[in-house]
Amino acid sequence: SGIPEVKTILLGSDIKGFLTSRALLATSFGLCLAVGSGLPVGKEGPFVHIACIIAKLLLSLPLYKQFRKNKSFLRDTLSAACAVGVSSTFAAPIGGVLFSIEVTAIYFPVRNYWRGFFAAVSGSIVFRFFAFWFADERTITAVFTTKFDRFPYDAQELLVFLLIGAFSGLFAALFICLHAKVVELPKTLNFFSVKDLKIANFLYSLLIVIVISSLKFPHLLGPYMGLPSKEVIDQLFDEHSLAQQDIWKSPNIFASLFLYFLLHFVFTAFSVSLPFPAGVFVPVFTIGATFGRLVGEIMLALFPNGIHSDEEIGNIIPGGYAVVGAAAFSAAVTHTISTSVVVFELTGQITHIIPVMLAVLIADGLAHALKPSFYESMIKLKKLSYLPSISGFYKGHHKSAGEVMRKVEFYIDENATIKHISYLLQNSSLLDYPLVTSNSLNLIGAPALKVDKELMAELMFSEDDQDYPD
Amino acid sequence: SGIPEVKTILLGSDIKGFLTSRALLATSFGLCLAVGSGLPVGKEGPFVHIACIIAKLLLSLPLYKQFRKNKSFLRDTLSAACAVGVSSTFAAPIGGVLFSIEVTAIYFPVRNYWRGFFAAVSGSIVFRFFAFWFADERTITAVFTTKFDRFPYDAQELLVFLLIGAFSGLFAALFICLHAKVVELPKTLNFFSVKDLKIANFLYSLLIVIVISSLKFPHLLGPYMGLPSKEVIDQLFDEHSLAQQDIWKSPNIFASLFLYFLLHFVFTAFSVSLPFPAGVFVPVFTIGATFGRLVGEIMLALFPNGIHSDEEIGNIIPGGYAVVGAAAFSAAVTHTISTSVVVFELTGQITHIIPVMLAVLIADGLAHALKPSFYESMIKLKKLSYLPSISGFYKGHHKSAGEVMRKVEFYIDENATIKHISYLLQNSSLLDYPLVTSNSLNLIGAPALKVDKELMAELMFSEDDQDYPD
Repeated sequence: SGIPEVKTILLGSDIKGFLTSRALLATSFGLCLAVGSGLPVGKEGPFVHIACIIAKLLLSLPLYKQFRKNKSFLRDTLSAACAVGVSSTFAAPIGGVLFSIEVTAIYFPVRNYWRGFFAAVSGSIVFRFFAFWFADERTITAVFTTKFDRFPYDAQELLVFLLIGAFSGLFAALFICLHAKVVELPKTLNFFSVKDLKIANFLYSLLIVIVISSLKFPHLLGPYMGLPSKEVIDQLFDEHSLAQQDIWKSPNIFASLFLYFLLHFVFTAFSVSLPFPAGVFVPVFTIGATFGRLVGEIMLALFPNGIHSDEEIGNIIPGGYAVVGAAAFSAAVTHTISTSVVVFELTGQITHIIPVMLAVLIADGLAHALKPSFYESMIKLKKLSYLPSISGFYKGHHKSAGEVMRKVEFYIDENATIKHISYLLQNSSLLDYPLVTSNSLNLIGAPALKVDKELMAELMFSEDDQDYPD
Repeated sequence: SGIPEVKTILLGSDIKGFLTSRALLATSFGLCLAVGSGLPVGKEGPFVHIACIIAKLLLSLPLYKQFRKNKSFLRDTLSAACAVGVSSTFAAPIGGVLFSIEVTAIYFPVRNYWRGFFAAVSGSIVFRFFAFWFADERTITAVFTTKFDRFPYDAQELLVFLLIGAFSGLFAALFICLHAKVVELPKTLNFFSVKDLKIANFLYSLLIVIVISSLKFPHLLGPYMGLPSKEVIDQLFDEHSLAQQDIWKSPNIFASLFLYFLLHFVFTAFSVSLPFPAGVFVPVFTIGATFGRLVGEIMLALFPNGIHSDEEIGNIIPGGYAVVGAAAFSAAVTHTISTSVVVFELTGQITHIIPVMLAVLIADGLAHALKPSFYESMIKLKKLSYLPSISGFYKGHHKSAGEVMRKVEFYIDENATIKHISYLLQNSSLLDYPLVTSNSLNLIGAPALKVDKELMAELMFSEDDQDYPD
């Protein structure tokens, strides 16, 4: 949550109550609890949400009085806030800004580049200075520092990286499918048969959290299941084989990695569907890293002395495969290419640029062809007003607007009564209804009528005749 | 040249003869000669030009018949071609794409991201594979590989990096000023007093080339002057002090670096003003690296044991200062932030991310406030039709279009004669003239009348009465 809403706001819609200090408190507190619970949830969405609220609150300072009413200024500010939000999640200023652009914009004004980068780098410097001053860091370094060789891979390995990209794309499409199904699950099952939606939601969330937490208990399936995602990524990105570490050994590293991959694939789809602030990037990144590492370990087992047994290029580095997998899968789920930049910034190494870019492009292209991005899918699931991008590669570009529009079935005329409106709300699910003159059906306006179930129920009970013409 | 024209084409103008196979031949051949001459010229502009022509030619294949007439498709293709052009100049796929976006676009459609990256990575893989197969590279590596420590700088050094950024911004504004003056030089001097412009241009270019080449002769000022820019950058990015190398020693490294910086600052302004295909990035990058290195060597002389004499963080690395300087100055001249990404890709190291980003942002912000970018300045100098970005930070956003427009002084009415038109061409320098009805001055059209000096001269000689009412 967070990014879909900000995307619709940047596209011109208005979501009531989204950018308020109340929401700031709820999101901040909720995020702490969500992350603290140990569920596989990310932080990018809530961070973007928080940054946008702070930006909005800063704009209410007297200093910005003259800019406040300028809608374009508000949008530019929110766009920079998005950049900060994403950048501070990853501690990756460049990748963060690019990621926020790809995720929230359709047309991006290049003049906002500088603003976004300035805001993000300021955030990133503060973040890293805290690590430098208060923690045990000697100086400012990357988060998941990798230590790969100067010659990290053989050219022949590119084919395997390409396959990682292709599979990541397919898995991402599967993940988005699964997530959409999971979101609809509580409605379709309806197994609580509780009328109060809030209690039903709470019980459902509780059940999911208990199941996931139990399965993540270190002594049930394996000690690796209980690790926080930061440590898992650290271990997966390590240049030595996992076979040297006890934690992944039982029954064997391939089975452990596969189990971790499979379970977290499902866990994440459930976690991010629950009604609390949660992003998707870090869990998806971890899942991708696990998949890549699995392939890397298999490659190492197949070619223990490297593909060419060449002294200088050396052995296969399974950690490199994990980096490629992480980049490819997160790129495919979010439909962004900038994940590759995020990866370089996170690892502090750019040695794997060609494999990462290859895998990311393949994964992103495939995922794009198969499914909308995770955030777009969320927009659809949340029924936010949004103009989807036109697919079909220029095929429909010669069509006129009239050809691609649906005829309006539901409208409100000047003399509409509350009965008529309640009928509309029951039988249609639009967000706006055209308001027209009675005689000529000329458009006057478009009031937004949110479906208020309680009001509807009241109306239903108080009045019983429901035969409307048309 | 190249980038300004492509920018105007992407914004909707049409430049006759720019995207033809004739131009392809001339640019390719001219670029080889220009680079071969040893003048400080870059390749990014001509490469973008060449890539755009190839894209246009590919579109004339039968395969693309159905897309050819779609203007939006043409623009998207050219945009991807720009990405390829820049990326292959730098062998930096990510930075190249971002650079091309910042340089050519005002509003960038995010859907083109994937296309640009795909094209650029394809180009980059082919380029690097050539190096791997045909040259002595063991595997695919970065171009100017740096080997900095894991702890490359002390947090206190950030202040110096910030100053490098600020000075780079000032130098960039100075450079753009100087370049604009130099471009106007042959016109203002008029010292050949030759009527044939082609010969005058040729003689002027010859003079400049002879002067620059003489001063770059290794035995005149110092052996470092004669080095090609690739070797200069290699040496400047080296982690050890230049004092260990003979080439920069006489009279001493500070004087050599300063002389190199100063002379190439002036040389580059002259070289890129000459009428042959030339980019600006590589020379500007080298100049920035020299400046940064100068600061780095001074820092090393001031603090020979590092600022804190800390064992682990170690000494000051002057090569890191060169990297920061190169990024900051090229960012400021081109008004792009993506140069920082280009730098990471070129060096294969991302250790200096915070100093590079800091310096780039400061430099870019300062340069932006003082002067237009090099490419925008070129657009103005070449009098290409172009909608400049509105500066003034939202101040004029409430003004109506009528308030900010100039009254049309020159127009052509239906009954205008060739005399009237020749008078117009003499006394105004617009690219388009409104064509209006004689009575009511209603706009009918806007014919573009390019100033054809020969035709004008003919007209002047054949007709002598020139008294027009207004």
